[in-house]
Amino acid sequence: MSLSIIIMAAGQGTRMKSSSPKVLHKICGKEMLFHSINEAKKLSSDINVVLFHQADKVQKTMESYFEDVKYSLQDHINYPGTGGAVMAVREINERVLVLNGDMPLVQAQSMARLTEIPADVVMTAIRLNDPSGYGRVVTDGESVVKIVEEKDASPNEKEIKTVNAGVYCFDGRFLAEFLPKLSNTNAQKEYYLTDLIELAVQNGKSVKWVEVTEEEFKGVNSKIDLADAEEIMCDRIRKKWMASGVTMRLPHTTYIDYDATFIGECEVESHCVIKGKSIIENSAVKAGSILEDAVMINSDCGPMARLRPKTKLTNTHIGNFVECKNARLDGVKAGHLSYLGDCTAEEGTNIGAGTITCNYDGVKKYETTIGKNVFIGSDTQLVAPVTLEDNTMIAAGTTVTKDVTSGALAISRTAQKEIAGFFDRFFGKK
Amino acid sequence: MSLSIIIMAAGQGTRMKSSSPKVLHKICGKEMLFHSINEAKKLSSDINVVLFHQADKVQKTMESYFEDVKYSLQDHINYPGTGGAVMAVREINERVLVLNGDMPLVQAQSMARLTEIPADVVMTAIRLNDPSGYGRVVTDGESVVKIVEEKDASPNEKEIKTVNAGVYCFDGRFLAEFLPKLSNTNAQKEYYLTDLIELAVQNGKSVKWVEVTEEEFKGVNSKIDLADAEEIMCDRIRKKWMASGVTMRLPHTTYIDYDATFIGECEVESHCVIKGKSIIENSAVKAGSILEDAVMINSDCGPMARLRPKTKLTNTHIGNFVECKNARLDGVKAGHLSYLGDCTAEEGTNIGAGTITCNYDGVKKYETTIGKNVFIGSDTQLVAPVTLEDNTMIAAGTTVTKDVTSGALAISRTAQKEIAGFFDRFFGKK
Amino acid sequence: MSLSIIIMAAGQGTRMKSSSPKVLHKICGKEMLFHSINEAKKLSSDINVVLFHQADKVQKTMESYFEDVKYSLQDHINYPGTGGAVMAVREINERVLVLNGDMPLVQAQSMARLTEIPADVVMTAIRLNDPSGYGRVVTDGESVVKIVEEKDASPNEKEIKTVNAGVYCFDGRFLAEFLPKLSNTNAQKEYYLTDLIELAVQNGKSVKWVEVTEEEFKGVNSKIDLADAEEIMCDRIRKKWMASGVTMRLPHTTYIDYDATFIGECEVESHCVIKGKSIIENSAVKAGSILEDAVMINSDCGPMARLRPKTKLTNTHIGNFVECKNARLDGVKAGHLSYLGDCTAEEGTNIGAGTITCNYDGVKKYETTIGKNVFIGSDTQLVAPVTLEDNTMIAAGTTVTKDVTSGALAISRTAQKEIAGFFDRFFGKK
Repeated sequence: MSLSIIIMAAGQGTRMKSSSPKVLHKICGKEMLFHSINEAKKLSSDINVVLFHQADKVQKTMESYFEDVKYSLQDHINYPGTGGAVMAVREINERVLVLNGDMPLVQAQSMARLTEIPADVVMTAIRLNDPSGYGRVVTDGESVVKIVEEKDASPNEKEIKTVNAGVYCFDGRFLAEFLPKLSNTNAQKEYYLTDLIELAVQNGKSVKWVEVTEEEFKGVNSKIDLADAEEIMCDRIRKKWMASGVTMRLPHTTYIDYDATFIGECEVESHCVIKGKSIIENSAVKAGSILEDAVMINSDCGPMARLRPKTKLTNTHIGNFVECKNARLDGVKAGHLSYLGDCTAEEGTNIGAGTITCNYDGVKKYETTIGKNVFIGSDTQLVAPVTLEDNTMIAAGTTVTKDVTSGALAISRTAQKEIAGFFDRFFGKK
Repeated sequence: MSLSIIIMAAGQGTRMKSSSPKVLHKICGKEMLFHSINEAKKLSSDINVVLFHQADKVQKTMESYFEDVKYSLQDHINYPGTGGAVMAVREINERVLVLNGDMPLVQAQSMARLTEIPADVVMTAIRLNDPSGYGRVVTDGESVVKIVEEKDASPNEKEIKTVNAGVYCFDGRFLAEFLPKLSNTNAQKEYYLTDLIELAVQNGKSVKWVEVTEEEFKGVNSKIDLADAEEIMCDRIRKKWMASGVTMRLPHTTYIDYDATFIGECEVESHCVIKGKSIIENSAVKAGSILEDAVMINSDCGPMARLRPKTKLTNTHIGNFVECKNARLDGVKAGHLSYLGDCTAEEGTNIGAGTITCNYDGVKKYETTIGKNVFIGSDTQLVAPVTLEDNTMIAAGTTVTKDVTSGALAISRTAQKEIAGFFDRFFGKK
Repeated sequence: MSLSIIIMAAGQGTRMKSSSPKVLHKICGKEMLFHSINEAKKLSSDINVVLFHQADKVQKTMESYFEDVKYSLQDHINYPGTGGAVMAVREINERVLVLNGDMPLVQAQSMARLTEIPADVVMTAIRLNDPSGYGRVVTDGESVVKIVEEKDASPNEKEIKTVNAGVYCFDGRFLAEFLPKLSNTNAQKEYYLTDLIELAVQNGKSVKWVEVTEEEFKGVNSKIDLADAEEIMCDRIRKKWMASGVTMRLPHTTYIDYDATFIGECEVESHCVIKGKSIIENSAVKAGSILEDAVMINSDCGPMARLRPKTKLTNTHIGNFVECKNARLDGVKAGHLSYLGDCTAEEGTNIGAGTITCNYDGVKKYETTIGKNVFIGSDTQLVAPVTLEDNTMIAAGTTVTKDVTSGALAISRTAQKEIAGFFDRFFGKK
């Protein structure tokens, strides 16, 4: 069986109240449409995305992820609606699965259930406790009799709790024959895919249905829906990593991107954020820490540490209120209140509280190179480019502007003076 | 129809285990009683609050918000109980809505449902899955037959799942006639509003009921209830702003006060706190950031930034571990580990990591004035009052105690010295 | 009635994917087995823990908490299974309660319900909405008829929703008689405690059951289960303290260890972490703060403060991005971006932003002693060991290397110089 997958991604999504097209809103670090294509590609290599609103922007964004996806432009003026969207795709295979680009939670195994049922049309239905307002799916065993709108439903039909979930799998020949027969003689003057159900039944074609869950097939139409969908996706991601052995404390408080990876025995405490292609191996991320495209191996960070892109920690301890950016640290301790940007440091080095790599001079960024067994006193500025050789010490409060030779102590300090009686003169005798 | 609203706020709330009166406990930044009055005022200008415990404190607090609310003191000695509370209000209108000051979640539209039903008494009832322990509301269609206590209920009555929610709307004449007829011949020797139901039924008056939700009409009697109520209120606030277009990441982890405002396209990442009259316009609040009465326009802050009162950011980037207090920044970058208090800075200014405005000398607070295009090196102290004119530079580690002239570099630095061989002498040859 | 309690803790817990034995995984700061023993000891002093995997490690860890627990080693080779575990305990009392070491949420009062029922065997059962996959408990009133595996269940039996919860109370004589009669003629060749039910019924012994909740009796078999169990335990802890009067903001975001204690009127804002034997008395913990074995009395900390072990705050304010470790502060303010380690400070002292106690010289840690009414300017390093006497001032940016005499100002500062025209020379004329 050859399968075409069509993903409808033409809509603007006005209820999102956003300047971005709906399908480019992200959940867990990836656009909703990314998630749909990503799952679809597990079933087929013939992926067709139908675009209209901000089509260029959507296409370019997806091309940054996927090489072999096809894009079609819906003729939104003459052929609006879901039926019009499918018409935009010219070449289809034996079977055609039609997805919505605003349903980012639909998983490949659920898509596969539809494609495996031999029928002219396979539709999805959700069972709702309170279906009022939705069109009901009137079924007869595995077959669909009709879809009836709330306003047209008989009292008996109103009792039906199965509603249309909006994802379909069509036989290719059926679609080729009946899609052109859709009409737009309705209030909105749109071409509706749902009308294919009626055409199929009228023409004696087989129409089957599968029950799917609301959680998986909920469409995202607002920022509330987006947050709900992200919560579900994030929970899947957390559970995947917990199942693989990661210990998490209050996992519902921690945000993890789709691209993050854990290896070995790791622990993530509460209210962390792990973004981008972060890799965490045999490491502990303490409460409130934030990682962005950062790598940790046999290390720990936090609580309240931030590891920004191109940070790589190996056998390293990063403490509270420490920010690392493009910092490659191996065997290092930096426990408190520091900014380590564009730097390397090696085995045995201890970076005191309040150390700042002055990596930017207002024009360019520069590197700081810190060797082995360097002891950096507190509140030290390392004005880059600068090198601290192995086995050096930096006195507390020093501004390091020149390289420090191995074995030396670098210091820039004015002797401490006492001005006696100043306290009473300043504050007044008490 | 003229409507009086009576809010019962006399109780101490011993189960709150607090030195504050119950109704002054806050949810989402406002006292519970504030929320009740605030909603009530949407329906009527005749708001009567009945006080007793710490009456002065409660009245003064509410007077800071509302000008035209009336306060009565319950005669708690002679007329205890909910009936006694209502007796404290002397002048009433045609219709009288009686609310509890410890039900901060009841919304105006729900109150309105009661006032719109023409009856001598309209009461509220909640449907509980497990009503055991509560008095049941015995109904006959829209009418109430009686309220029966658990211990007096017949087996059939025990099956009833509707229980009294404690909010009532009375006909004014009914109340004027029957309130004086309440008796306190009960175990607690209190005057109960619920007894008015029995009096009404006995006297052939019409008693109707409306179903309300437990979530909205739950009373707050303990700190657990308080946390639950705040969670619900906070969720309403989040949903309101998400519906208006704000993107939120794991919104259930973020605390937002009732007074906060979002404008345009904003994003709030996980575990933030947004307090007071903060205004966030076309801005991004990154994970773990905390705002208190702060304003952000076209700006971003965090992760883990803190914006305190009188902070106004315009076109500004505030990074991690940066605290702003009374800082008015326009077109500024302050990315790391800084304290910016009582200061202004303008377009093109870059504030290095570890910059501290020394705004306090132990007696008074002073201002720091930073102009345009100022480049402040890392770990710099700006001892206020001090002015950095436009186009100035401050060398890393400088203590700025005098104003800096436009075009100049300010520096206070001791030359870096090397003491060779110090490392081995200090740590011992390895 | 004398009661023996046997806690089965022999398993490795391969699904935990951990190098630690299952029962040593922590929830709310204590090992799962700790929680089981801790509750068991409320009912009996005869606690028997059955070990096998990493027996030494488990025993040593528990001995650090409990003095009078007995440990047995299961003969895992010859007598595997839950029956084999119980066989490892040689001496038993009149009644024998058998618990699982991976059920950390079972509370003493629930255990007591089993021990109070006079029967040869009392078993626990959970009512599940969807029991498929589980063995069903076939009951006749309070008595158990049999346990039937899913695969052996008749259609009627499959409708049964009660499943075995795995905790039992046995009559000692029954156990002594029938435990040796267990056989391992089953697929896994293990000795199963459940087989005792069949033996009991066959021999006309009384077998009763009590219904328990899934939430309390859920076993922990994976890191997902561990997180779920911790969430439940943490919620119990939060509710306990809220009931005692602690105000919590979004309590579900805050992690609290089993050992933490609150006294008086306290407030804990959102996303905090309170670990170890922290004691918080009449104090406020602001959002995002982290305490570890710290004590606060009439103090406040945060938002985003960290108090590490041996910190004791009295009448003290600790602000954002401040870390305290072994800091004993009484009547002190330290509002911003500081590291206070191994130090004391007294009444009236103000510690400026960016103050760092340099407590470590690469070899040893040293103390900083700060007296009363000391005003420490911003960005100051206190190189320990060092003493600031009462009524002293430290100028901003000073490196304090020598003791400061009472009444004096200490300063180490180079005069600020201006290099005119530097800005244009550096950045180029604009």
